[in-house]
Amino acid sequence: MSEPHAIAGRLTETGHELTQRVYFEDTDFSGRIYHARYLHFMERGRSDYLRLLGVHHHELARDGHAFAVRHMAIDFLKAASVDDVLTIRTAPKAITGARIILRQQVLCDGEMLIAAEVTVALVGPGGRPARLPQAIRDALARAAKTGGWPALCGLPQP
Amino acid sequence: MSEPHAIAGRLTETGHELTQRVYFEDTDFSGRIYHARYLHFMERGRSDYLRLLGVHHHELARDGHAFAVRHMAIDFLKAASVDDVLTIRTAPKAITGARIILRQQVLCDGEMLIAAEVTVALVGPGGRPARLPQAIRDALARAAKTGGWPALCGLPQP
Amino acid sequence: MSEPHAIAGRLTETGHELTQRVYFEDTDFSGRIYHARYLHFMERGRSDYLRLLGVHHHELARDGHAFAVRHMAIDFLKAASVDDVLTIRTAPKAITGARIILRQQVLCDGEMLIAAEVTVALVGPGGRPARLPQAIRDALARAAKTGGWPALCGLPQP
Amino acid sequence: MSEPHAIAGRLTETGHELTQRVYFEDTDFSGRIYHARYLHFMERGRSDYLRLLGVHHHELARDGHAFAVRHMAIDFLKAASVDDVLTIRTAPKAITGARIILRQQVLCDGEMLIAAEVTVALVGPGGRPARLPQAIRDALARAAKTGGWPALCGLPQP
Repeated sequence: MSEPHAIAGRLTETGHELTQRVYFEDTDFSGRIYHARYLHFMERGRSDYLRLLGVHHHELARDGHAFAVRHMAIDFLKAASVDDVLTIRTAPKAITGARIILRQQVLCDGEMLIAAEVTVALVGPGGRPARLPQAIRDALARAAKTGGWPALCGLPQP
Repeated sequence: MSEPHAIAGRLTETGHELTQRVYFEDTDFSGRIYHARYLHFMERGRSDYLRLLGVHHHELARDGHAFAVRHMAIDFLKAASVDDVLTIRTAPKAITGARIILRQQVLCDGEMLIAAEVTVALVGPGGRPARLPQAIRDALARAAKTGGWPALCGLPQP
Repeated sequence: MSEPHAIAGRLTETGHELTQRVYFEDTDFSGRIYHARYLHFMERGRSDYLRLLGVHHHELARDGHAFAVRHMAIDFLKAASVDDVLTIRTAPKAITGARIILRQQVLCDGEMLIAAEVTVALVGPGGRPARLPQAIRDALARAAKTGGWPALCGLPQP
Repeated sequence: MSEPHAIAGRLTETGHELTQRVYFEDTDFSGRIYHARYLHFMERGRSDYLRLLGVHHHELARDGHAFAVRHMAIDFLKAASVDDVLTIRTAPKAITGARIILRQQVLCDGEMLIAAEVTVALVGPGGRPARLPQAIRDALARAAKTGGWPALCGLPQP
């Protein structure tokens, strides 16, 4: 439970992998994770993926830029509990001038809890769409080509 | 901003409508709402809809039952800001023995911010699917038949 | 549970009173409210109190101003559960040029759950302390003089 | 930013130290951390401290036990921003049969952001106070005796 790991996770062949703990704050009275908290875990995964590619939110913010989520499709397959250690996987699926489509999974002990497809866009001052820096598009496009993941959405649900 | 309203919202011909304020806690450093917070607002809408139909979480919990989200598809169309007053609309689309498919919208000043389709299931002790009480299924089925809403997902995005 | 109320609460002789529901999101696996959520409820109370005195966060933000919490002392006396309807009371205790000291209580069914003393400051661009507008200081000072509340902190705990 | 660290932090001579990142979710429209989020970081610190002492929330929960916060005094000295890496320090100050008083600090780049004193209690079924296991009381009492920390509350505020 306490083995060393990198705080920003690690780049993999297909994208990025982050380890995070489920704390008290993530649960609700049903005894399991509150469903919206998985979006927090996935956002941490996306942020740390971009971080390891050299993109930092506080630097973007200086120019009035921030990433915004445009679309999400999420299968909630199984619920985690307090103390669980989760793996958040993020992999690019497609990149256009202004948008990134990512596949994300949340796993616990090798079992898939969440499978999602997330579209994010870079937004500039006043909420206007902004073009992704070329270096990021190239890095994501390279990872997207590996295509190592099975389709995540439309999975049969338990 | 302070006109009287019912704390649990109100039943409408097609479902339910709830008024909620955007507070400090709902925003992030981009200056707008943190995307996952919309799921909180939608959950409040679903809870208050069921409440007005006579279903209370704390009563379900006594028998070890709770609602769990199984699938969500969400279009994030426009972002709200602090102090905004939101309208959360919830309408049943389909009901099966164990699942409810709901359409949800979040609006501000007549503009649609969020359009979502949400599948929830009743879960019993040990996470096993539980059958919805007949009275709830009937009430939701009646509302679903009015079919007053246009399709919410797959909307063209700005 | 659904009687009409004003979304921004109401001014009272000693300060402000706001009604809020406990939702799924506010609870944790212990079955009760997650302790930090009470700070959200209290912040909503402070925001709506200022709102009814004519101070709006989004207007302050245009000039780079925002309120920041400087100190809190909180007694957690009793825990609320999902579906509970809470009353959040806010009353000014003292006002200086840059700081407001407020007493806050959270109640449910007439029982006190939380008793807190909160110091907030107005902060300008770059995090520098900013002077409170005179009109606000006057309004708060008038309410502070009524002094209708018993001391909130240092209460015997159950 | 990505050097290896133990996910549950590490025991120190005076208590425990945990490293955590500030993500999008932790901020608000002021551009800094939402004040209540520090309570989440402190709770993670307390949970991981107890974890390394052999106490696990999910095991306590099986017998209907959970920790509850009884009192908090918090100085908010300086605000963190997105992408910051925080150190959360936790040290026992006093232990009685049913309560633990802890000192907690949140630091960033060697600067203290938060200084707090937190009283927690173990609570059993129905919310009744429960006695702390002897092994935990001994471990905490040993750390409390080292007394390596300066007083945290009542610090002069900037």
